[in-house]
Amino acid sequence: MSDYFQESIELHKKYKGKISIEPKVPLKNKEDLSKAYSPGVAAVCQEIKKGENPKEFTTAKNTVAVVTDGSAVLGLGNIGPEASLPVMEGKAALFKAFAGVDAFPIALDTQDTEEIIKIVKAIAPTFGGINLEDISAPRCFEIEKRLIQELDIPVFHDDQHGTAIVVLAGLINALKIVKKKKEDLKIVINGSGAAGVAIAKLLTDAGFPKSYITDSGGLVSECRDDLNEAQKELLACCSISSICGGLNEVIDGADVFIGVSVGNVLTKEQVKRMADSPIVFALANPIPEIDPQDAKEAGAFIVATGRSDYPNQINNVLVFPGIFKGALSSGAKKITTEMKLKAAEALASLVESPTPDNIIPDPFNRQAPDVVASAVEKVAKTKE
Amino acid sequence: MSDYFQESIELHKKYKGKISIEPKVPLKNKEDLSKAYSPGVAAVCQEIKKGENPKEFTTAKNTVAVVTDGSAVLGLGNIGPEASLPVMEGKAALFKAFAGVDAFPIALDTQDTEEIIKIVKAIAPTFGGINLEDISAPRCFEIEKRLIQELDIPVFHDDQHGTAIVVLAGLINALKIVKKKKEDLKIVINGSGAAGVAIAKLLTDAGFPKSYITDSGGLVSECRDDLNEAQKELLACCSISSICGGLNEVIDGADVFIGVSVGNVLTKEQVKRMADSPIVFALANPIPEIDPQDAKEAGAFIVATGRSDYPNQINNVLVFPGIFKGALSSGAKKITTEMKLKAAEALASLVESPTPDNIIPDPFNRQAPDVVASAVEKVAKTKE
Repeated sequence: MSDYFQESIELHKKYKGKISIEPKVPLKNKEDLSKAYSPGVAAVCQEIKKGENPKEFTTAKNTVAVVTDGSAVLGLGNIGPEASLPVMEGKAALFKAFAGVDAFPIALDTQDTEEIIKIVKAIAPTFGGINLEDISAPRCFEIEKRLIQELDIPVFHDDQHGTAIVVLAGLINALKIVKKKKEDLKIVINGSGAAGVAIAKLLTDAGFPKSYITDSGGLVSECRDDLNEAQKELLACCSISSICGGLNEVIDGADVFIGVSVGNVLTKEQVKRMADSPIVFALANPIPEIDPQDAKEAGAFIVATGRSDYPNQINNVLVFPGIFKGALSSGAKKITTEMKLKAAEALASLVESPTPDNIIPDPFNRQAPDVVASAVEKVAKTKE
Repeated sequence: MSDYFQESIELHKKYKGKISIEPKVPLKNKEDLSKAYSPGVAAVCQEIKKGENPKEFTTAKNTVAVVTDGSAVLGLGNIGPEASLPVMEGKAALFKAFAGVDAFPIALDTQDTEEIIKIVKAIAPTFGGINLEDISAPRCFEIEKRLIQELDIPVFHDDQHGTAIVVLAGLINALKIVKKKKEDLKIVINGSGAAGVAIAKLLTDAGFPKSYITDSGGLVSECRDDLNEAQKELLACCSISSICGGLNEVIDGADVFIGVSVGNVLTKEQVKRMADSPIVFALANPIPEIDPQDAKEAGAFIVATGRSDYPNQINNVLVFPGIFKGALSSGAKKITTEMKLKAAEALASLVESPTPDNIIPDPFNRQAPDVVASAVEKVAKTKE
């Protein structure tokens, strides 16, 4: 790991960032200039002004803004916009490399919810979609909700829904192996931030039972008086909240543990108290909720992490490029729940014969962006 | 001209815009991903958080935002952000093609001065410089002034200063031909918007006498009660304002006419009333203030326009790519008056032996961006 750190610093210094902006039309002579720019371009402006769709004439149709305020970057916390930029540029580079989607980082020097909403709305004409990134909970929920309501282009908070979709895809395949029915599961989600909330919602949307959602304050339940709006919503839709307690209590007999929290919060002893053939998704990065080796020793049948050096890497790169590729190509105005569900199913179906060490495609699976995009397009078309 | 219109529409439909965003680091395998993105990138974020210059690790150092609100686009007026986007994308493409500068269009869905200032400040961490574009006067003056004050990256309103710099360069060479001294000139500038104001200021900064500045309301003078703040500033610094009247009066005996207004406002008869060897810059686009042929027939010795189909095209593309190239590479925090003056001189010097039909380099002169950039860098260095 520490090798990657030093090599990454050197890579960034050498290349001075990770994206470049290139002309894609000829610009070699006056003739070219007269068509791409003045005077010819005036006619294009007028076509749009007369009511033609601007997306037919501009890069905006295929361009996603990767918007952050730097408030919850990787596991590093609130490091601000400048320090978050390498992550946003990386994401922009991945959008193009994995799905042919143009993406540009917008790191905002404000963490005020209303200002962020206003700014994203103001810059929206340049873009075909908005990927919210590394914005801390609970602000991320309000920002996403409002932008979805107030913009007519797709808005997607990847830390929430990208994670939820890959988790669902992995879980679909894990259940095929352990031969359990989703209806019968006892699921514990540890972590009630952006990812935890979105996973809990998507699992219930997919027909899974309500989850036990725990965080550092214990079980997200009616016993708590410190819940934010998004967590309170979970009480109604997605969480078993009639009891009081914490992870150590609810882990008893659990079939599935999904950790989207911090390192080393799940013990071997707790894994031993889970149901038969337990499924452990320990997704905290870089240090998982439990070391995968320890989890296996304690009886975990299937273990997934967020890391590339263990089997079953739960990596959003399997999802976000294809989600936007499909949404942009189909002209969808929103990323719907059905799109997310179908994307997860499509991703799961890429693993033909799931095994405990192979429940999810490799991040470099070349088909992943396309099957996800197709799933999204298909839903978009049936809605027309 | 009309051919260009149709061909431009076809070009834009075919390519779906004019820029693309490309990864510039390898992204072929897990190893690459671990360095360009998670987990390696966390180390880069931390370096920046610890105080390292973000510009050393990101594309921001070489990236300019082309910001507009769509309020004064080409000669088309207030057509809004969507319809302005083809111009902004064109400009972004030119930045890269002419000077290797990455540039990205930001078309804003607001025309409120304070909101624009706030938004540009908020998105600034992503950029190394701000090119303001096609924002109407007088709002453009306040927006530029405030952003220059409040940001520590270069902010440049190209419609003002790009135009002023090319005009000055052309004028420097024109004077060599007519063998007049700048101190002795009677200069008439028709148009008191963004370009007119900036030209008047830069000419006086360059040691030219105050100009007669006229617009549709007559001479910008103390007789007027309809002047905006920027125009009032001209009264003190740059304009001869002690008389009342209009273009038709002040054109008598003028050595230089600079039109940055609208088509067909200067008559042959008026050109005949100018001084010996009159210099006529009729820069309105696409229809000049006077047809170049008519101007010649009326005795104009040197005629320049904004058009590519006549000699002496006054085209900002000679300036803005090099200005930002030099500012970004030298780390300059502002574009100073001295940089503008030196850029104009450098540009003028590219024409070795000026003639009436060759006072300014061709827009495709390959040396122009570099000599302009060098001039800017040299000034930046002497200020350190």
